[in-house]
Amino acid sequence: MASDPAGLVRIRTEVAGALERFMDGQRAVLAAIGDDMLPWIEVVTDLLAGGKRLRPAFCYWGWRAAGGEDTPEIYAAAAALELLHASALVHDDVMDASDTRRGRPAVHRQFSARQPAGGIAGQAESFGAGAAILIGDALLSWTDELYHASGMAPEALRLGQPVLDAMRTEIAAGQYLDLVNQVTGNESVRSAMRVVTYKTAKYTIERPLQLGAALAGAPPDGLPGIAAGRAASRPRARMAARSVPGTCTEYGMPLGIAFQLRDDILGIFGDPVRTGKPATGDISEGKRTVLMALARERASAMQLRVLDRHLGDRGLTEAGAAEVRAVLAETGALAECETLISASVKEATAALDGAPITEDARAALTELVVLATARAD
Amino acid sequence: MASDPAGLVRIRTEVAGALERFMDGQRAVLAAIGDDMLPWIEVVTDLLAGGKRLRPAFCYWGWRAAGGEDTPEIYAAAAALELLHASALVHDDVMDASDTRRGRPAVHRQFSARQPAGGIAGQAESFGAGAAILIGDALLSWTDELYHASGMAPEALRLGQPVLDAMRTEIAAGQYLDLVNQVTGNESVRSAMRVVTYKTAKYTIERPLQLGAALAGAPPDGLPGIAAGRAASRPRARMAARSVPGTCTEYGMPLGIAFQLRDDILGIFGDPVRTGKPATGDISEGKRTVLMALARERASAMQLRVLDRHLGDRGLTEAGAAEVRAVLAETGALAECETLISASVKEATAALDGAPITEDARAALTELVVLATARAD
Repeated sequence: MASDPAGLVRIRTEVAGALERFMDGQRAVLAAIGDDMLPWIEVVTDLLAGGKRLRPAFCYWGWRAAGGEDTPEIYAAAAALELLHASALVHDDVMDASDTRRGRPAVHRQFSARQPAGGIAGQAESFGAGAAILIGDALLSWTDELYHASGMAPEALRLGQPVLDAMRTEIAAGQYLDLVNQVTGNESVRSAMRVVTYKTAKYTIERPLQLGAALAGAPPDGLPGIAAGRAASRPRARMAARSVPGTCTEYGMPLGIAFQLRDDILGIFGDPVRTGKPATGDISEGKRTVLMALARERASAMQLRVLDRHLGDRGLTEAGAAEVRAVLAETGALAECETLISASVKEATAALDGAPITEDARAALTELVVLATARAD
Repeated sequence: MASDPAGLVRIRTEVAGALERFMDGQRAVLAAIGDDMLPWIEVVTDLLAGGKRLRPAFCYWGWRAAGGEDTPEIYAAAAALELLHASALVHDDVMDASDTRRGRPAVHRQFSARQPAGGIAGQAESFGAGAAILIGDALLSWTDELYHASGMAPEALRLGQPVLDAMRTEIAAGQYLDLVNQVTGNESVRSAMRVVTYKTAKYTIERPLQLGAALAGAPPDGLPGIAAGRAASRPRARMAARSVPGTCTEYGMPLGIAFQLRDDILGIFGDPVRTGKPATGDISEGKRTVLMALARERASAMQLRVLDRHLGDRGLTEAGAAEVRAVLAETGALAECETLISASVKEATAALDGAPITEDARAALTELVVLATARAD
């Protein structure tokens, strides 16, 4: 591997720079409204500092795959995806009543804690939630603002727009399907996989890649066009496998699944120092993961009782978490997850073989398979 | 007045058509994800049916004021503002825990009530709030999607973009300032006026007008441009008063204030059948309006106690509401509000005098002053 695998260090630096310049502009806009708006900048800047820039990296390599040059504009356009992701995280944390995010208090918790002077104690929680909903809304609007202010040519932006549109609808839909599974107690592998498809595989990998490729002049088929009338989405990915956007799908979907399964495992077996999340977090939040669904499918009655006792228990102890980990291992769910990851990784890698993309991109995307699915984060 | 004052009937018809076509497209997109997404379409279509289309109307007349022709594209672009507004309403209702909107249950209440089969009873409320947050997010993304799919020329869209950007940041900021006033118990006329400036005057009138004008080639000064570096907003409205965008400000800001003050009055003294809101709603929600701030400034200790007793009382009776109405009248706050409305209406009307806009637009904007501030809604 090169000394900067997949150019990630450079991408992170450039994306951080683009975000910083953008937030400087927003600071001026908000300061003109009033100084009491400035906590937004502080909180958002903090949140944006923590990202791994995975979506911008895939966007960048989608662009390069389709022959785009290394220019400042692509980093700015790719950075817009970090604003979208930050918006989703802020709203997700409100919905889940999560305490932490990226190793810090969640945005709604920060605002509950820093109520303005004279604040009424009993309203701290609803103030925090309200502020976080509004900041998430601003971040979602800013996605669009940065995308269009990236300096990309109007025609490029026009080709990318339907991908950005699809991505935003899909992430909201994926979150909703997750919510539905949660309240209906749907624990099936099938339903968990559908959530992974929309919430991760498309949103984190396929669409960012396709956005980059579209900006470089290779938009995917099957999306409602801007000028054309909208029609039901026609899945042509297989047909177009030997095109750049087809490769984005053939590579991105299995890699997205592998990435999420690795995240499922890290969320329960990972080192909290490396993941930035408490080791008991995914268990005490009762996250409906594919890993957990696989365990339920295989569990004995006694093992099921262990899962039911601890999942979603906000007061979970380390001993309880250890019992859950034992069930995941003993049922074979953990091993099955690793097998699925290996198979998906193989599929993603195979999709690059002979694909009509640039050699730089082929090398980087090969490296990104490893980076996105490695055992430690 | 013409038989269709300010062309509102035609604008409403065209905007409804554009929204319907757009939602047909979204139905196909969501159906491709799964049938369990279709309740979104049902709920959103219902919500969108209820709007007065005030923002699209101002956008349309901003376009016409700057010489734009009557084309399908301007209605589609203007209709995007209805999606933005629907997003703000859905999120606002979650934040305020409001029960109703436009005469129907609020979106989060609808989802609490229609939990999917097998739903866990105790989670109905958080399911409803989560679904509403996500639907509001989708509506916010769709704003941008419809704007860019309106069929407007790319150069027109580029000129309008900074106005749309400013509008979205300002509405989120205005809502936040409102929230801050609420938790800090800030009841001053000054702080209520600042909320009105961002949450209504700019958002409902000035920016929609400027968006239309920018689409027609007359963008406002003082907004961070797309290509230019971002600088602190420079208020040049006065200087540019005799330009089209200057007129949007000179006319839009006082009219926006008058419109909100009329809404304050209708929210407490209005006929629930006409306003679509319960007659006690604004009082029991404890809305911090300019009307209420004016009453507090003038109230005796005894009158203040009446206000404190009833404002924000979720169990408010009609008798309690009547006591509050009496205080608003007896302190002179109601009369003061009417005086402010009259003065603002006069200022808005005067701004049209000799302004460099088309005669059609001058006539329509004159009619819109009356429509936006009339005593009955």
